[in-house]
Amino acid sequence: MLYIVEGPQQGKSLKEEIEARGVPAWYVELWGNYIVVTPPNVRLQGLNTPVKAAIELKTDSQLVSREWKRDPTPVYIGGREVREGKIFIIAGPCSVETEDQIMKTARFVKEAGADALRGGAFKPRTSPYTFQGLGEEGLKLLAKAREETGLPAVTELMDPEDMPLVVRYADAIQVGARNMQNFTLLKKLGRAGKPVLLKRGFGNTIEEWLLAAEYVALHGNGGIILVERGIRTFDKTLRFTLDVGAIAYAKQHTHLPVIGDPSHPAGDRRYVIPLALAILAAGADGLIVEVHPDPDKAWSDAKQQLTFDQFRELVQKAREVARALGKS
Amino acid sequence: MLYIVEGPQQGKSLKEEIEARGVPAWYVELWGNYIVVTPPNVRLQGLNTPVKAAIELKTDSQLVSREWKRDPTPVYIGGREVREGKIFIIAGPCSVETEDQIMKTARFVKEAGADALRGGAFKPRTSPYTFQGLGEEGLKLLAKAREETGLPAVTELMDPEDMPLVVRYADAIQVGARNMQNFTLLKKLGRAGKPVLLKRGFGNTIEEWLLAAEYVALHGNGGIILVERGIRTFDKTLRFTLDVGAIAYAKQHTHLPVIGDPSHPAGDRRYVIPLALAILAAGADGLIVEVHPDPDKAWSDAKQQLTFDQFRELVQKAREVARALGKS
Amino acid sequence: MLYIVEGPQQGKSLKEEIEARGVPAWYVELWGNYIVVTPPNVRLQGLNTPVKAAIELKTDSQLVSREWKRDPTPVYIGGREVREGKIFIIAGPCSVETEDQIMKTARFVKEAGADALRGGAFKPRTSPYTFQGLGEEGLKLLAKAREETGLPAVTELMDPEDMPLVVRYADAIQVGARNMQNFTLLKKLGRAGKPVLLKRGFGNTIEEWLLAAEYVALHGNGGIILVERGIRTFDKTLRFTLDVGAIAYAKQHTHLPVIGDPSHPAGDRRYVIPLALAILAAGADGLIVEVHPDPDKAWSDAKQQLTFDQFRELVQKAREVARALGKS
Amino acid sequence: MLYIVEGPQQGKSLKEEIEARGVPAWYVELWGNYIVVTPPNVRLQGLNTPVKAAIELKTDSQLVSREWKRDPTPVYIGGREVREGKIFIIAGPCSVETEDQIMKTARFVKEAGADALRGGAFKPRTSPYTFQGLGEEGLKLLAKAREETGLPAVTELMDPEDMPLVVRYADAIQVGARNMQNFTLLKKLGRAGKPVLLKRGFGNTIEEWLLAAEYVALHGNGGIILVERGIRTFDKTLRFTLDVGAIAYAKQHTHLPVIGDPSHPAGDRRYVIPLALAILAAGADGLIVEVHPDPDKAWSDAKQQLTFDQFRELVQKAREVARALGKS
Repeated sequence: MLYIVEGPQQGKSLKEEIEARGVPAWYVELWGNYIVVTPPNVRLQGLNTPVKAAIELKTDSQLVSREWKRDPTPVYIGGREVREGKIFIIAGPCSVETEDQIMKTARFVKEAGADALRGGAFKPRTSPYTFQGLGEEGLKLLAKAREETGLPAVTELMDPEDMPLVVRYADAIQVGARNMQNFTLLKKLGRAGKPVLLKRGFGNTIEEWLLAAEYVALHGNGGIILVERGIRTFDKTLRFTLDVGAIAYAKQHTHLPVIGDPSHPAGDRRYVIPLALAILAAGADGLIVEVHPDPDKAWSDAKQQLTFDQFRELVQKAREVARALGKS
Repeated sequence: MLYIVEGPQQGKSLKEEIEARGVPAWYVELWGNYIVVTPPNVRLQGLNTPVKAAIELKTDSQLVSREWKRDPTPVYIGGREVREGKIFIIAGPCSVETEDQIMKTARFVKEAGADALRGGAFKPRTSPYTFQGLGEEGLKLLAKAREETGLPAVTELMDPEDMPLVVRYADAIQVGARNMQNFTLLKKLGRAGKPVLLKRGFGNTIEEWLLAAEYVALHGNGGIILVERGIRTFDKTLRFTLDVGAIAYAKQHTHLPVIGDPSHPAGDRRYVIPLALAILAAGADGLIVEVHPDPDKAWSDAKQQLTFDQFRELVQKAREVARALGKS
Repeated sequence: MLYIVEGPQQGKSLKEEIEARGVPAWYVELWGNYIVVTPPNVRLQGLNTPVKAAIELKTDSQLVSREWKRDPTPVYIGGREVREGKIFIIAGPCSVETEDQIMKTARFVKEAGADALRGGAFKPRTSPYTFQGLGEEGLKLLAKAREETGLPAVTELMDPEDMPLVVRYADAIQVGARNMQNFTLLKKLGRAGKPVLLKRGFGNTIEEWLLAAEYVALHGNGGIILVERGIRTFDKTLRFTLDVGAIAYAKQHTHLPVIGDPSHPAGDRRYVIPLALAILAAGADGLIVEVHPDPDKAWSDAKQQLTFDQFRELVQKAREVARALGKS
Repeated sequence: MLYIVEGPQQGKSLKEEIEARGVPAWYVELWGNYIVVTPPNVRLQGLNTPVKAAIELKTDSQLVSREWKRDPTPVYIGGREVREGKIFIIAGPCSVETEDQIMKTARFVKEAGADALRGGAFKPRTSPYTFQGLGEEGLKLLAKAREETGLPAVTELMDPEDMPLVVRYADAIQVGARNMQNFTLLKKLGRAGKPVLLKRGFGNTIEEWLLAAEYVALHGNGGIILVERGIRTFDKTLRFTLDVGAIAYAKQHTHLPVIGDPSHPAGDRRYVIPLALAILAAGADGLIVEVHPDPDKAWSDAKQQLTFDQFRELVQKAREVARALGKS
């Protein structure tokens, strides 16, 4: 149940009243609302604290549900708005490699029309023997590119202990597919004070994805952007199977922005543009895409990063498809 | 290997020469070419029959490959062209149910901008206890709707024995997902004399889909339209997972037209429009979509068939996305 | 609904009475019962024809359900019994290749303890350019091996038109994974007069597998053996993912014999024996396994066919596991 | 490359020599060996430090590979050996709930023949609104049951910060399926000083599972037990699809013990015993299974936990199958 109250004081009082009955309760301030939350199947009679609204939902992904919050939630990355009705493009290399590489890319993607810069400093790698990212050094380079270009920076956080570091250098924190159900990390991100890009796990259902977002929201952070990036299926022709149905579903059932990553499902730059356009046509509010000055020499994901020319072509086509869909 | 020859006589001669060496060979006339085909890994030296070109491909899906035939192949359904650069919309009910139902639908979809009419008379049903289609009676009703509206008709063939019947009443023959590897049926369709809509099996890889097309082509029928309609994955939120990557891949690797079916992966009419637009944005040459005058009362697939209003909305949006992609 | 009646005459009368009400009904004689079948959700009041029992089941796989027929159904292949409580081993090459190959294999597997001989004459091949089987010639060789060794023969049927041919030469007819939902074929097998080995499709659910069996039973053939052979999943380390859970489920929910094929999921002979033992431990009533005198030179499935020595080892271990499970 | 050296001093020297060339190197003592490790594709010529052996493997899962370490590695949980040739049974409730519940279960499973006790105190739950475990209180109860019965205790660790706590109370640390690629956690477990049960992620390939083990080993911990627990597939009849092929593969390709969890793939206690026996027949070295004094009232996984009677039956059958396989 969601109980909308007047303010923090009433929230505190209601939370205590409910907990006194042996029922867990949380108080959160989200999207301009003061909310006391209980498990969805709990119905409490005769509460004394007055409430503005008591909302019962059938799902466990209560806070992020569009059933009670019909208006879409905008999320701000470094002051720039990600929201329904327009498209937001995040671009940059898979990994931050060198100062030259990230500066060049940042300048280029800005000029080509990107809204934010991506770049990994902590890399979750399947094998312990492959490049694991530059760590803090990478964050510093990313921050430098941000300063010069003015593009907000997005980067991945793996270890909860690194949260202060990442928060210092980046404008938005990415949760990788492999950490989507790292509940320890999700809970801590509730207190990050920066928006979270929540990638869908390649083995996770849509419901689990929304519930991962619910963890972040319930622990205090409403700045969540859902990122579809492909799932594992029996077909291995492309690297992953992009699930555009998940985008269509998430857009209808949550009020959060939803964007798509065409690079990881493509696995090969030849397929990135059609996948990106499909993401937008399915209703996504933006893209996060890998771009590299010299993709074949990239230290990770060499095959799937776009060249500068391809990225320019992508932005142009993306803007045209957006217009056809009545978006800016 | 593909050997392009001058004409049938040379083809016959080359085929015999190759078979005399104990190697299987086929002669086919396809897309304006006279072709002798051998297995791709067979390399023959010192053939006497002159050839225009000897083409070696690394794949078993040789005939349908874009590597040797760069120009896209148009396919004609009842005189109307399905081809790269425009979009072709096939619409109609899942099953032909009554004269009133099919006539109403045919008139409406024509007026709303459909290019062809679909309607099932032989239905592959998971359970033997559900409606199996009206059979020949359904074909007759479909043909009647075709006559009145002038829309070409598309319908499914299940039993090879019914081929003459289906060919008599329909302008294009659909192979259902469950029959994509029914090789007996595929071989017989090589002699159908009507174009084939080849649905991808929900458990089949992209390569198997192209090889199924190769079966049809090798047995003499070059009028093949590939249809992506969603695959089975671990996520059951929607009915199937639409694989837009398969569309992007098929468009780049074959010269055949590729269309998408948004109805079956959606499984629910609320998701059909975004999936349809994603199909087009991924590069497909058209759509096949279920529409019904009163979907909730449909005898099959009630939940996923579009209402008339929804179909009108879909056509309008589809045309706008097509324009944004530079298509007519 | 299943209505158990006294005999054919009563069955005919009841069927007509039900159809007069506009409800479809089938009459079948199966497993010593005279049965009139209607769709499961149909409840008819006030029928005049007397019945021994009226059985309502929640599933569409009514006839094959263990809810009404608690005792396991034995199936006879060439007079040999496949049934719960013992294990039945079918062995032989993927394809019949030469007289020498099939005779050698037949003699060996008999001596090593096999209960029946397998060998494909009509092969469903993904590519049109690979070996498609010897056809009738293969059936004749198989029949010859059967005659000499006394082992019953099992072979696959693809084209319904070949049914008379296959029935003449073989003791049991295999439906391949790709044809599990070839409903035309399933219906015709209802009148085959020979038992059917129904392989589960690699993209099909357990429910669909049982419903495919229901098709065969409803059309008159109760001699059905279910064969689990692995499904498609995201993991490609082995060829398919053997689903032992499907065996456990099918054993509890149907009265039909269930066997397993370890060769196709293994895809490599190194893994066949552990998979075979897992199949038996999960409760299967037997195995169908590929064996070849010289696997590396086999014309199909070369990597996964067992050598003679491996097959001998498999039989010995299988018998020991069977004993541990209290089976003969 | 793996370089086996005489001892730590030589290891240190070689590591430095390699790093001086700009190549990453690790030194680890594992399974009685002193090893310097470099990425597998790195070949170094003319090293000065003498080595006992230089081993080149084609895989990134070098340390855990059976190619260089043919003899199986035993792992000790609280002094009890998990190893090839016998079966080791870990049993207990999904979650530690109350003192009475865990004590009763511990006493029973000990008497019935279990080798170790399981019980979760930190629970990774899909929804933030479901029971998240008793935390340290649960660990204390588990430790109490361990003391009374003498059974070693196994429990899950989610938050790296809780490692000291878990290590204090438990004899082995479980990594849950959702954390299999939580590389931060894996690296820290390299220094846990207690054995690790590494569950396979339900969306992860076999290769990724072995590479997760490689992370733990490379960071210093050789006490790794691989746990197969089912993967996500399109079939939802059971909760997950148990992948017995993964067991067969892991047993042949690594020297680590491999056990199976039949409870999670079953999802329903009716299927646990056949799955458990299939796990053993596929070659596993043991089982980890959920048992509860009153499963229907369990606070988590109520449907799949075995009753005491069922567990007794399982142990008896497991021992018989083990004997048939020549194991103790």
